[in-house]
Parts: sequence; C-alpha cells; structure tokens
Amino acid sequence: MTRFALTVEFDGRPFMGWQRQDHGPSVQQAIEEAAFAVTGERASVQAAGRTDAGVHALAMRAHIDIDKPIAAFRLMEALNARVRPNPVAILDCAEVADDWHARFSCVARHYEYRISTRRAPLTWEKGLAWRVIPPLDAGLMAQGAARLVGRHDFTTFRSVHCQADSPLRTLDRLDVVQDGERISVFASARSFLHHQVRSMVGCLVLVGQGRWSPDDMRAALEARDRAALGLNAPSDGLFFLRADYP
Amino acid sequence: MTRFALTVEFDGRPFMGWQRQDHGPSVQQAIEEAAFAVTGERASVQAAGRTDAGVHALAMRAHIDIDKPIAAFRLMEALNARVRPNPVAILDCAEVADDWHARFSCVARHYEYRISTRRAPLTWEKGLAWRVIPPLDAGLMAQGAARLVGRHDFTTFRSVHCQADSPLRTLDRLDVVQDGERISVFASARSFLHHQVRSMVGCLVLVGQGRWSPDDMRAALEARDRAALGLNAPSDGLFFLRADYP
Repeated sequence: MTRFALTVEFDGRPFMGWQRQDHGPSVQQAIEEAAFAVTGERASVQAAGRTDAGVHALAMRAHIDIDKPIAAFRLMEALNARVRPNPVAILDCAEVADDWHARFSCVARHYEYRISTRRAPLTWEKGLAWRVIPPLDAGLMAQGAARLVGRHDFTTFRSVHCQADSPLRTLDRLDVVQDGERISVFASARSFLHHQVRSMVGCLVLVGQGRWSPDDMRAALEARDRAALGLNAPSDGLFFLRADYP
Repeated sequence: MTRFALTVEFDGRPFMGWQRQDHGPSVQQAIEEAAFAVTGERASVQAAGRTDAGVHALAMRAHIDIDKPIAAFRLMEALNARVRPNPVAILDCAEVADDWHARFSCVARHYEYRISTRRAPLTWEKGLAWRVIPPLDAGLMAQGAARLVGRHDFTTFRSVHCQADSPLRTLDRLDVVQDGERISVFASARSFLHHQVRSMVGCLVLVGQGRWSPDDMRAALEARDRAALGLNAPSDGLFFLRADYP
C-alpha cells in the first residue's frame, strides 16, 4: 500500500460539496470513481476540509491509499483523464508516509471569499463570487474583521449543524483586500467551524454597507448565540485556498 | 429616437456567436429581447464585431435606437434585469449622436487569446482558455508573431467563409505575454478578417511547440493560401477586449 497526497482544484458549482452524499454528486465521489477506474480499487479519499455545496478549491489537499504499484505522476495523469467531465483537476500527486493524513496532519487552512461590487450581473464569474450591490466600504469591513482575530468562542458564527466538540477557535488572519470592484476576505486558522467563514463574511458585508458598525462585530461575537448572526454569505464566493503541513 | 452606446460583457459558451441565428441562441438576440421587454420596441442592436460561437467579450461595444424616452442609466439597469439568465452584462450605457455607429465608427479592435499551458485539465476556466500541453515556448511565439505585424494580405489566416472584400489588413499589434502557466496573445487592428486571430494563434502554437520555426509564420503569410494554415485555434480562448472610437 502506498499513500499519495493529492492537490486538487475544483469548481464547486455542480457538487453537493466535498463529501459523498446520497442525494447528489460530490468531489470525493468523482475522485474515488476515477481512482477505481484507474486501479480497480475502492479507495477512500480524505480531504483537509469538507467544503459545502457550491464551495470551490484552488488547492485542496487530500490523500488516497493505493495497493497497486503505480508512480505518482502516472496516477495523477490517469486520475485527471478519468475524472472528466467533472470540473476537478489533480494539480499535484506525491508519495507520502503512511501516517501523513490530509485532515489530521493539517496545521493551517486558508480560505478566500470573493465579493464583486459591480452593479452589472456576473457572466462567467456567476457562482464564483458573491455580487453585492455597491456601495461597500472595505475600510469599515477591515475594522470589523480585526475584532474577530484571535482565540474566541465562535458560536455566533457556527452553523447549528456544526459537529465540532468545541466552539473555540483561533482565527489567525481575517484580512479584507480591495482591488477595483473586487473585495476579497482572506481567512486563516488551524481549523474552522462549519459555516464560520461564510458567517463572518456575511456580517462583514453588513459592516461594509453601514448597517452594522465595526463594533457590532464584537458584540455579535460576544453574544455567543447563533441568533446574533446578521447574515450568512452564500457559498458562491468561497474558495479553499490551501492547507499547511509541518 | 435616441441612440445609446452599450458596453457589453458576455460569456460566449452558450451562444452561437454575437449575431442572430436561426439555429441557436445569440448575444444579439438576448439583448434585443431584453430591450423589447423593457421598451416594447423591436430595436436592432449593432456591435463593433461579430464574434463566433464560443467567443467571449470583456467590453464589446454596440448601439441601439430607442423611441421611448428613457435615461441611459435606467435603460442599462432594466436591460441587465431582463437579459437574465443569459450570461450577458451591460457594463455601461450612454447617449450618443445619431450618426455614431458601433461598427462603422470603430477605428480599432482589440482581442486577447488566452492559452493555458498547465498539464491538469481546466475546471472553472473550461471553455474560457485553450489548454495546450507544455512545453510551449512563448519567446519563440513572440518571434513568430513579429513576422505578422504590419500591412499584409492575410488570405492564409482567413476563413473560407470570410465575406470581407479584401484580404488586406494592417495588424498593429500581436504580442505574446507569459504569466506563469498562462500565455496570452494580444492582437490589435482597425479590423480583422473572419477567424484571423484564431488562425494566427493556432500557427503561433505550432511555433511555440517547435513544430514550426518563427520564419514559417512568414512563409505561411506569403503563401496567401488557406491551405498553408497550420492550425486554427478553438474559439474557447478568444476574448473581444475593447473597441476604440475617435
């Protein structure tokens, strides 16, 4: 048995999310079926994070165990050939130690949330960004974001379906970057709660619209109550950027 | 009657091209039907260029004549609301003189052709770039491109269906720009022949692959024979960038 680490890009629009579901297509299923076509083995693919329906990835990390002898490059090429026509691409494939685990070995996860503030509807970017009608003040959003950085109880920003044992998380980075009509929110942490990034971004948009003050972000955080959430951003704009390993 | 100049972005993937067709959807039809829904008028929309099926636009220019009194901003907003769910966006709308013509007043047209040289298949960029398996030498492509700049008979690089009176065109710019795995070819001219950009790019890829020398581009040009064409690039990577007016 050889364990391979995969770097995976995917367009989340047609998928119910990363994880296998009974009721629709998933990225995990697409890769596992491609692996079966290549190796004849029913191997399970484990990812650094379980993304929601409609969420995208630039460089998700995952691992898969294969019994059949196969070189990493050959496996990557064969998976890419077989995963079609799903919008999934294996960007890198490398042999790793048997105890390397895409999820449990991961020490940091990085997301980008893309907001488009143009008036006109999106064309090719539809489903790849959240269009918010301007004006949206990125400076105010940055002030609001600063209130959330650090170790906190993020119950307010956590889905009621979240299965994590604790609502405590350490948010290492929550930066708001404007480039013309694009506002991106970059979030980094060892791990995130379910819907945490989307919930933080939704409230930051309220701040950018002037409906919340930057201090209202702190008040929402301190409420430790999902009912204090202002707005949950749609999945469209969320991209899993990368995962870090020791 | 008021003439409005429109700036239009569109994702060409679902369309048979700009121009109205009996056998499938077109960008022109999508905008004309939106205009009818807004004004009740059967107005014709004229564009700076007639793009092929699958070709995209970042800022196509067009004009439309409307009898009903309506402000330019209001017309833009209403067209954007009614053109849905087509991937078409009116980015700008302005009143112009009655003799301003999107096609005949245009003095320069600019295109970008996007090539992706990564090994992995494209995900969200599928249909928005031409994926060419590396290696592809952008430096050689630039040398080949330089052979085509200037006033020439472009018969070799012209579709047999081209309806232009003359195969003579003045190519003002044909630049090859590399940024990581992306190679873009930028083409500028007062006007282009049918398939000219795609035909030039197709042959430049042969040069980049080492199958043609840069001088083979000149030989193909001087042959003035469509049979001398090496390769016609697919429509996927072609973007109408902008049109210039005096």
